[in-house]
Amino acid sequence: MAKELKFGVIGAGYMGKAYSIALNTVSAVFPLSAKPVLDVLATTSATGAEDKAEAFGFRRATGSWQELAADPDIDVVGICSPTYLHKEMALAAIAAGKHVLCEKPLALSAREAHEMANAAERAGVKTLVGYNYIKNPATQLAKQMIANGEIGEIVHFRGTHNEDFLMDPALPMSWRLKAAYGSQAGALGDLASHIINLAHYLCGPIAEVVGESQTIHRQRPGKDGQLEVVENDDQTNFLVKFESGVLGPIEASRIAAGRKMGLTYEVVGTKGTLSFDQERLAELQFYSADDSPSRCGFRTILIGPEHPDYGHFCIGAGHGFGYNDMITVEMKEMVEGIAAGQPLWPSFRDAVHTALVVDAVLLSQREKRWVAIQELEQELNQ
Amino acid sequence: MAKELKFGVIGAGYMGKAYSIALNTVSAVFPLSAKPVLDVLATTSATGAEDKAEAFGFRRATGSWQELAADPDIDVVGICSPTYLHKEMALAAIAAGKHVLCEKPLALSAREAHEMANAAERAGVKTLVGYNYIKNPATQLAKQMIANGEIGEIVHFRGTHNEDFLMDPALPMSWRLKAAYGSQAGALGDLASHIINLAHYLCGPIAEVVGESQTIHRQRPGKDGQLEVVENDDQTNFLVKFESGVLGPIEASRIAAGRKMGLTYEVVGTKGTLSFDQERLAELQFYSADDSPSRCGFRTILIGPEHPDYGHFCIGAGHGFGYNDMITVEMKEMVEGIAAGQPLWPSFRDAVHTALVVDAVLLSQREKRWVAIQELEQELNQ
Amino acid sequence: MAKELKFGVIGAGYMGKAYSIALNTVSAVFPLSAKPVLDVLATTSATGAEDKAEAFGFRRATGSWQELAADPDIDVVGICSPTYLHKEMALAAIAAGKHVLCEKPLALSAREAHEMANAAERAGVKTLVGYNYIKNPATQLAKQMIANGEIGEIVHFRGTHNEDFLMDPALPMSWRLKAAYGSQAGALGDLASHIINLAHYLCGPIAEVVGESQTIHRQRPGKDGQLEVVENDDQTNFLVKFESGVLGPIEASRIAAGRKMGLTYEVVGTKGTLSFDQERLAELQFYSADDSPSRCGFRTILIGPEHPDYGHFCIGAGHGFGYNDMITVEMKEMVEGIAAGQPLWPSFRDAVHTALVVDAVLLSQREKRWVAIQELEQELNQ
Amino acid sequence: MAKELKFGVIGAGYMGKAYSIALNTVSAVFPLSAKPVLDVLATTSATGAEDKAEAFGFRRATGSWQELAADPDIDVVGICSPTYLHKEMALAAIAAGKHVLCEKPLALSAREAHEMANAAERAGVKTLVGYNYIKNPATQLAKQMIANGEIGEIVHFRGTHNEDFLMDPALPMSWRLKAAYGSQAGALGDLASHIINLAHYLCGPIAEVVGESQTIHRQRPGKDGQLEVVENDDQTNFLVKFESGVLGPIEASRIAAGRKMGLTYEVVGTKGTLSFDQERLAELQFYSADDSPSRCGFRTILIGPEHPDYGHFCIGAGHGFGYNDMITVEMKEMVEGIAAGQPLWPSFRDAVHTALVVDAVLLSQREKRWVAIQELEQELNQ
Repeated sequence: MAKELKFGVIGAGYMGKAYSIALNTVSAVFPLSAKPVLDVLATTSATGAEDKAEAFGFRRATGSWQELAADPDIDVVGICSPTYLHKEMALAAIAAGKHVLCEKPLALSAREAHEMANAAERAGVKTLVGYNYIKNPATQLAKQMIANGEIGEIVHFRGTHNEDFLMDPALPMSWRLKAAYGSQAGALGDLASHIINLAHYLCGPIAEVVGESQTIHRQRPGKDGQLEVVENDDQTNFLVKFESGVLGPIEASRIAAGRKMGLTYEVVGTKGTLSFDQERLAELQFYSADDSPSRCGFRTILIGPEHPDYGHFCIGAGHGFGYNDMITVEMKEMVEGIAAGQPLWPSFRDAVHTALVVDAVLLSQREKRWVAIQELEQELNQ
Repeated sequence: MAKELKFGVIGAGYMGKAYSIALNTVSAVFPLSAKPVLDVLATTSATGAEDKAEAFGFRRATGSWQELAADPDIDVVGICSPTYLHKEMALAAIAAGKHVLCEKPLALSAREAHEMANAAERAGVKTLVGYNYIKNPATQLAKQMIANGEIGEIVHFRGTHNEDFLMDPALPMSWRLKAAYGSQAGALGDLASHIINLAHYLCGPIAEVVGESQTIHRQRPGKDGQLEVVENDDQTNFLVKFESGVLGPIEASRIAAGRKMGLTYEVVGTKGTLSFDQERLAELQFYSADDSPSRCGFRTILIGPEHPDYGHFCIGAGHGFGYNDMITVEMKEMVEGIAAGQPLWPSFRDAVHTALVVDAVLLSQREKRWVAIQELEQELNQ
Repeated sequence: MAKELKFGVIGAGYMGKAYSIALNTVSAVFPLSAKPVLDVLATTSATGAEDKAEAFGFRRATGSWQELAADPDIDVVGICSPTYLHKEMALAAIAAGKHVLCEKPLALSAREAHEMANAAERAGVKTLVGYNYIKNPATQLAKQMIANGEIGEIVHFRGTHNEDFLMDPALPMSWRLKAAYGSQAGALGDLASHIINLAHYLCGPIAEVVGESQTIHRQRPGKDGQLEVVENDDQTNFLVKFESGVLGPIEASRIAAGRKMGLTYEVVGTKGTLSFDQERLAELQFYSADDSPSRCGFRTILIGPEHPDYGHFCIGAGHGFGYNDMITVEMKEMVEGIAAGQPLWPSFRDAVHTALVVDAVLLSQREKRWVAIQELEQELNQ
Repeated sequence: MAKELKFGVIGAGYMGKAYSIALNTVSAVFPLSAKPVLDVLATTSATGAEDKAEAFGFRRATGSWQELAADPDIDVVGICSPTYLHKEMALAAIAAGKHVLCEKPLALSAREAHEMANAAERAGVKTLVGYNYIKNPATQLAKQMIANGEIGEIVHFRGTHNEDFLMDPALPMSWRLKAAYGSQAGALGDLASHIINLAHYLCGPIAEVVGESQTIHRQRPGKDGQLEVVENDDQTNFLVKFESGVLGPIEASRIAAGRKMGLTYEVVGTKGTLSFDQERLAELQFYSADDSPSRCGFRTILIGPEHPDYGHFCIGAGHGFGYNDMITVEMKEMVEGIAAGQPLWPSFRDAVHTALVVDAVLLSQREKRWVAIQELEQELNQ
């Protein structure tokens, strides 16, 4: 493992910490084609950076993300900042020839995402977007089973991403709730993007959508206690029609009382069904019509060493798989994508599709109609 | 219990048997204001009728439903025939002054349902439509809890009615799959009607819909083995917006591999959530935001004697409640509606709403747009 | 269905009502070899009897169970009285040549049960004991699957029957809690007897036991509010070794907070496992080692028309099965046992085994040792 | 974080890897009083050691555990070898003044464990035994809730540790199945020890036991394909009585078809119940009798930042917690135990109790009687 891959990470909050945990552990978990090194951590203020860098295991710290992005020693930049900063940071890193791992959603709009993907492609750098839930062995298994034809031809997809972290109307205003910083798309941009990406992963591209999003708690207290206007949605509901013709509903909410990680999907095929709930992330429910009629039923497959990636973490099935383990898989893929030329999914280009679907839902609501993704895609290319 | 209520039941198939079981047992279960009597059973052929009538406990049998409908001894007519016959039978019974309990869906279209409701109202007879699932104590409890404000103000509704009894494309053609006998609406008319009625029961009337239905298995073998065209949908997906502004998806399928009685709903409120699955019909999942943050979670309420109707069947909570028990509750309500003037829901009039929603989904698909229920309602009244 | 079988039922409480519901409905559910008739209902006072008899659908009422037992018109006597009365009533009915269906536990001790079984055998009448839970289609299916070898050779059994109806120490004293009326065995006699009978049904006879029972709430308020001593156990724990050599724990409790009908069992074999919880009575969990290692998992079989008895109640799988439906199966078996010579299980003789196991657990505790069932059996035959 | 704690780990198999993953990640997860350093990895052969050490992130490697144990630079020794080597290794490390983290079971017998605990106490070093499952936030929460009195006074405990990794009789012989290397106690020593330790953690010390263990697959193929005798049990069943008087069953199996990580427990109290299944390790089921009778039910608490340790891994409740995360908690405790004087549980001394219970079950079987732990404890002290 002679070769090193030096990582610079921007952001030391929730996701910055998760990236650090994963980078510290990935070499012990997986055999890798290169050794990831925690080189530089950038935060918004130089003072905090030193402490965080030491705690997280980075060699160096900086209060300037621009410095990090331009640092000639760095091979890969990880972006864990608020969404409105993604584009500027990614373009700077790409301009300096870095590979980029960027948190989701990739950008404030499909147009921004498209610009980022173009830049990366022109520069020939590798990109990956942090839609971590598809790295779960259970969901990788679902994809394999679909590809194998184990549920026949897909006829229906239902997906949700429901949480309740904003159900209390007394919770304060934050950047996530402002159109210019979070996005015009609230639960739609922040949460539905996960399940749209997952739908894309399992069932292919989406062709058209119709739907509506709603802001239930329209005002929240700002820093001075004054009520401020929430500028994006608390929940969204839409129907999607995939290019394959498959139809189904998608919903997302940040006020769904009781749901803490309610990323769920159900894929129905002509020969069986797969059903999943991220709150029980180590299980995949599988119904096969090949079972005898009097012995059939949904079976709970506990993920184990026979399934993708799991065995590197633990040799016993059903022993548990955690949130940070998914990020560790992401890091493994990033390393192998760069050092061994393995394909990376979703790249910035792949994530443009998710952004287009989000934009299409916004347009569908404004014009109260079905919107084809192609409509918006064509605009991008003009 | 001096007074008797004489029932005539048309149909000795699946639902005719269920009505009979319930009528035999309802007096032993509930204290009633009148004693239901199994008087006449009508089937399509007089010969079979005698045997069935004896087995099911009826005093008399007939091969002529017209005779039953006109019989001066009969107080109540139960209609368990294929949908396309409902209107004619109900109108005949109403014309003879009978109260009517009719299986769902009430009719082939909202127009037919409206005509039947009008006739019943003019005649002053009592009516009830067999949307039996809302008679489940768990669902009655859900309605009570919503009315009490236990989940706050409703913000979201999701409903499904998925089964898989037609997932095998080799299954033969039947009246259910023909527009003129089942309905233009397949899973939409047969199954979604249950969950639409349930949505109405829990969240009030629906204002508008957008959606699409699909026929996946477009041909099935007819009696002579020749393939015949399936004339209605295998699955349907639509968004509903209630008059209250609440939004959510509804889906139904008769080809949803693995789902045997997948009537499910989730009602999210500002203070909590209720979640239900008819395959576990004796449980209601309840999340309350009033619980301490570190002790909160969905709790499984097992229905028991504290909940509506259950205690009449069994004094121990969680001891089990079955399909026919829901029909027994329906019979109790029919008897009390007639003999004690208790309100009956859903009456023919209430069921017109369900039929309108079904028709609106059909129109939404034809015209690929949101359709307001009011549009269709106005047409009815012209 | 020319032949009638006239039933006399003693007791109009919880179980008397359940018997009545089942007798009213059984002919409509099942094709039967004879028609059960609700002839006489006996209660302790003649006044209540009339009302109850009318409500429950009996032709006649009496305040004297002796009169009922001796009534020459009666073919079958159902006994739903407190346990301490079972022997006297059953012996009277047997002496008058009646077939007897008696509630569980059959008697206060194995000695009493043995006496009752002897009397029935000498008189040549049919007997059945109301261990209704084994009539659940899911549990009948489990028995079939074991017999078919679907889980290989059994290596382990675990059973529980936990409820919490007496968890509150302020609940008043009752006959169940007195040795002379309920039994020396409290949860052991009342609840563990169900799971012992079920263990016997699934895995054959038990050879030896070791265990202990405990009374947690030792006093309860009597009628005058004075505290009275509880004379039998609140919970029991014992290991059983079957004649087959299979080993496992059994437990029962009437103070198990949260369990309403916690009759559960798990049978592990060399090729698979079956797992069941009566609170979800329409499901059987099945793990088969024949499944591919990467696709294996417990599957939830929803009971349906392919499984024993279910299809007579409802043609759709997973549509629900209730407490009274199990009693209805019991009535079907009683009728067919008498009118068609079908075997009845558990007869009084079969129930002696359960009583012996209960007595053995009591002895094991007194002498703090393993007790062989044979020890007690030999005493009976002396 | 000036101070470093240098770890030497013996063994590079399953647990050696898990220790390495945890040591790599623990500083990024938790704020710590000292910085753990992966200093030396020892394996049985020097060649493999180098590669493993590099992959796992150790500075140095050795093929001699004796060298590691004596290395003056090392502060803490982690022992991940087969059980029969634990004593020798631990005594060597202790003799050299190292703190020791040892995998479970601590030793082949209580006598060995006692000797190890004595040595550690005499040397004044810190010890911890790798009963990792009690480090799960859900189980830490259970302990807190019990201590808070949230379920009242405990009246019952049931525990299992069932897996199926040896259910196939064709699987080969291994050291685990030999009395001199694994232990005389098979599933009893390897798996039941986890649940005994957990019972001890939640309910205090055990006073007496009665039980039996069984070897179902008595022979397995050795290296040359010849069948060899399995020298310890495949499954064990025993009743435990705690010093508090609480009673309950414990079982463990390595042939329990379908159970992959079937560590489960249920603790019943006078006011509520806690129920847990390690296969759904991020959930604790809680029933509280304080809930209103008509709204009560088991609630699923998803572990989140309000619960012990979880928030250091992830700020969102229900986002997932994995196997290696529990080891990471263990490492945090080891570091804080040494560097900040935090109490460590279970120390070698605490683990003697588990070993005594295992030995008592073996004796109970040999002599077919209840065995008091005190009997064996007195022998140790002679």
